[in-house]
Amino acid sequence: MADMRRRKFWGWGYEDEQPGRAEVEETAALARDMLGFGDTEVRTPPRAEDIRLPDPRLTVPASLAGVVSTDPYERIRHAYGKSYRDVVRAFHGEFPNPPDLVALPCDEKETAAVLEWCAEAGAAVIPYGGGTSVTGGVEPLVGDAYTGTVTLDLGLLSGVVDVDSGSASARILAGTTLPDADAQLKPHGMTLRHYPQSYAHATVGGSIVTRAGGHYATGRTHIDDFVQSVRALTPTGPWESRRLPASGAGPSPDRMLIGSEGVLGVVTEAWLRVQDRPRYRASASVRHRTFAEGARAARAVVRSGLQPANCRLLDPREALLNGAGDGTHAVLILGFESAYHPQETLLSQALECVREHGGELAGEPRISRPEAAEQRSGPAPEQQWKDGFQAAPYLRDTLVAAGILVETFETAVTWNRFGELDEAVLRAAHEAAEEVCGTGVVNRRLTHVYPDGAAVYYTVLAPARRGSETAQWDAVKAAVSEAILNTGGTITHHHAVGRDHMPWYERQRPDAFAAALNAVKGELDPHRILNPGVLLPAPLLAGHPAAESVTRTRRLP
Amino acid sequence: MADMRRRKFWGWGYEDEQPGRAEVEETAALARDMLGFGDTEVRTPPRAEDIRLPDPRLTVPASLAGVVSTDPYERIRHAYGKSYRDVVRAFHGEFPNPPDLVALPCDEKETAAVLEWCAEAGAAVIPYGGGTSVTGGVEPLVGDAYTGTVTLDLGLLSGVVDVDSGSASARILAGTTLPDADAQLKPHGMTLRHYPQSYAHATVGGSIVTRAGGHYATGRTHIDDFVQSVRALTPTGPWESRRLPASGAGPSPDRMLIGSEGVLGVVTEAWLRVQDRPRYRASASVRHRTFAEGARAARAVVRSGLQPANCRLLDPREALLNGAGDGTHAVLILGFESAYHPQETLLSQALECVREHGGELAGEPRISRPEAAEQRSGPAPEQQWKDGFQAAPYLRDTLVAAGILVETFETAVTWNRFGELDEAVLRAAHEAAEEVCGTGVVNRRLTHVYPDGAAVYYTVLAPARRGSETAQWDAVKAAVSEAILNTGGTITHHHAVGRDHMPWYERQRPDAFAAALNAVKGELDPHRILNPGVLLPAPLLAGHPAAESVTRTRRLP
Repeated sequence: MADMRRRKFWGWGYEDEQPGRAEVEETAALARDMLGFGDTEVRTPPRAEDIRLPDPRLTVPASLAGVVSTDPYERIRHAYGKSYRDVVRAFHGEFPNPPDLVALPCDEKETAAVLEWCAEAGAAVIPYGGGTSVTGGVEPLVGDAYTGTVTLDLGLLSGVVDVDSGSASARILAGTTLPDADAQLKPHGMTLRHYPQSYAHATVGGSIVTRAGGHYATGRTHIDDFVQSVRALTPTGPWESRRLPASGAGPSPDRMLIGSEGVLGVVTEAWLRVQDRPRYRASASVRHRTFAEGARAARAVVRSGLQPANCRLLDPREALLNGAGDGTHAVLILGFESAYHPQETLLSQALECVREHGGELAGEPRISRPEAAEQRSGPAPEQQWKDGFQAAPYLRDTLVAAGILVETFETAVTWNRFGELDEAVLRAAHEAAEEVCGTGVVNRRLTHVYPDGAAVYYTVLAPARRGSETAQWDAVKAAVSEAILNTGGTITHHHAVGRDHMPWYERQRPDAFAAALNAVKGELDPHRILNPGVLLPAPLLAGHPAAESVTRTRRLP
Repeated sequence: MADMRRRKFWGWGYEDEQPGRAEVEETAALARDMLGFGDTEVRTPPRAEDIRLPDPRLTVPASLAGVVSTDPYERIRHAYGKSYRDVVRAFHGEFPNPPDLVALPCDEKETAAVLEWCAEAGAAVIPYGGGTSVTGGVEPLVGDAYTGTVTLDLGLLSGVVDVDSGSASARILAGTTLPDADAQLKPHGMTLRHYPQSYAHATVGGSIVTRAGGHYATGRTHIDDFVQSVRALTPTGPWESRRLPASGAGPSPDRMLIGSEGVLGVVTEAWLRVQDRPRYRASASVRHRTFAEGARAARAVVRSGLQPANCRLLDPREALLNGAGDGTHAVLILGFESAYHPQETLLSQALECVREHGGELAGEPRISRPEAAEQRSGPAPEQQWKDGFQAAPYLRDTLVAAGILVETFETAVTWNRFGELDEAVLRAAHEAAEEVCGTGVVNRRLTHVYPDGAAVYYTVLAPARRGSETAQWDAVKAAVSEAILNTGGTITHHHAVGRDHMPWYERQRPDAFAAALNAVKGELDPHRILNPGVLLPAPLLAGHPAAESVTRTRRLP
């Protein structure tokens, strides 16, 4: 079903979940004390009705009445994603560039009609799932080659429409939020078991096109692993792959759509591999003297072939802020789970690995079995972690109100360059924060661990200068991104490219692949109406001297 | 290093490993007794020097002297892959269509020079790794739009050139055979741990472009999982991806090359994820009343989250022929292995699953630990299986000599259609064999097991009619392929598409993806010189009425 509660137009989550004035004040004061900076004046967000919007450049065609709207609230709420950069602009009431129209089709037929009309009208289309992008993926900044922008919200294409228990898979419509998917799978004893931090609002389709990484640190956690087949609408026709557990028939069609960020087609539904709900758990927290020591231990665990659901390393301050440690040690949280088998042996094998690398068990391991649920005593740090994990985006909104700049950067890198990258990013983030904010703190954690490398997630906190936050953010973002790219990292491990990462993405991916992707774009989306400026540069006005470059080919002379 | 021993030009393996006349006679008699058919006259293959070849249509350019050759033996040995269809034609001395030239570059520079010359000369290029294709992937059948064909053998681009133990990865040149790769990784305590049946001769590059599936039934077994980055030469320039453990930056560039079967570029090297050599093993054989019961048990094991290295189900006759059973039961071979941890608990959890599904343990489980190697008593069925697995291709050559038609077909299908597909393929294979061969037997096994489906591998044995073998094979192949496609399977799980699977591949893959792939082809290989007729239809002579269709676009009118 579609989401009927009203979302906050300026920040994360639901209006009815936004903490009240007193709580915000209290949290802000707490943050100030802990960080030593932040504005004593805690500001309030604007009211939607006070927002001034530019007039729509497009008018709703009669053929799409009821599907497409110019409603100001809809245009406001679809104007941004959910990055700090987005929230701070919304908080200041800055909406210079909302979509001209918002389309809310209720089925594939209406979706196709919107695409067709946009192609005729010369309008750019911004496919929109949960709107949780933190990289400018849904911001209608498309350059000047279009008559206007239409945000295509797939929220009404919602529901688990077919469950194949025998094959542990389900057909799910693209606009289904992850909680809705899990709720509808639960009666079948199944779960999608895919928990990005955006879980509450992220959609199945959005997860596929952004190559979402789940909450789990190893094994099957990326949406890539869950996709069994995909159906999408391209401007030149439908794309549907065959349901298969595996195939060696040519390059994987699905892998061309996974991560395509809406520039090749609009995913309308997919068959996803789902899982039986875990009932056996075994977890433990391990203290490490340093983040580097903890990383070596985490590597040893994963390299040994173990695939813990949790293998999350927090540096000392990160552990403190997340209530998982006292700030004196790095904390490695290890957790195994299964729907069928006790996990104690695997946990003890993992603990053997970490002890060999200096880890010290913090408290007793927590064992949970269906037949003896009471063995689980109190909320595990793991559970506290998950709660904080889900609550973090609300806290981020409060920090914006309190004049505290907060942003996260994530990457993945092979182990041979891990230390070099970590050092370079910390230095770059600190220097940039000091230069543009006067001071700042940087925490980090490992979110995903692989035999050949790890994903690192950095959180930067600094005093914001009211009105200059985006300039401050841009400076920190650029410094960190340079450090990541120059030390062998990827510009994104699970936040996607969007518009914010384009300068670094273009340097990272092979030129030949860029040319290939551009050729695919020309084939499937000849009028280049889909999410212009993402993955490929936005077209320029015909006749523009540089217009060539966009559709440049690399043919031999 | 390159392979210095002389390969058999007409069949599998090395000349010095080809069994002698007496042994061939003996094996043939054994096969006749077991099968109840086969020619009492066991024929001998032709001598290379007696083979008549058409004159080369191309002459070696001075610039490539020493790199490109017209040597008849090289042209003969590169004329076919290693399918039954290939071997039987070679056995009859039929070589109507060898490559005009064979190129054996010793580095990337020479490889680029060959590509450049071919583009200028209008010659088609057949990239050639180990030449183990069983789907016509390296046969120079390219249509009439080219001045000739050049087989590009990458055998001299060989060696593990860089090992990054800390990241458990290695840079390996494309022409390196899998045994050479493992031999050079062994001093580092590492292994590629990728064992297709073509292991002895398959190359790293060939495995990547054909999306090879390894020997292991679950978990990390497909080459897709091992590729960390790829370097390739396209006719329009190099393609090199960044070494990363994981990335969410757009669609995966590597996934566009993995499975591309040489039509987009020539892979020259890759960084691959390698593994520590296993030292702990636990395995067991389980008897099941029927193949279907065994399949349900295998599904239960994998669905429970266990990832046995071996989870191979043989039907009764397959078990008998492989010395893994007495022919009265289906046999499920379960095996776990690890470089670090004892595997007994995992094996006992797996055995719990199969018992619940009617499985009966056949003999004691076999446990192997580094500190107690003697616990391993005699060769495990698993080991016998591996030996037979490697020897099978030689046996196939003997059956050809004995006038026995033998071919294998493989697919993968979701569990919900598994029974339907299995029944349809068995029926189609039997009916086709009876119609064109008078009789025949069909065995099958599960080679790979997934939570959402399985890969099934069928072996068809039938009396061949000398001289008509390819016609007989074509009839059986077509019947089985139709059955696979009509019951939801993939035309190939790990044998690739080549030329033999094209009719069914074109029906299987999404049309939009075909158009996308064609656009990429036009971008990277504008003269369409790379492996024409594979994955995409071969171009037709300019002016040919149907020539349009090849480069058709799907743009809106």
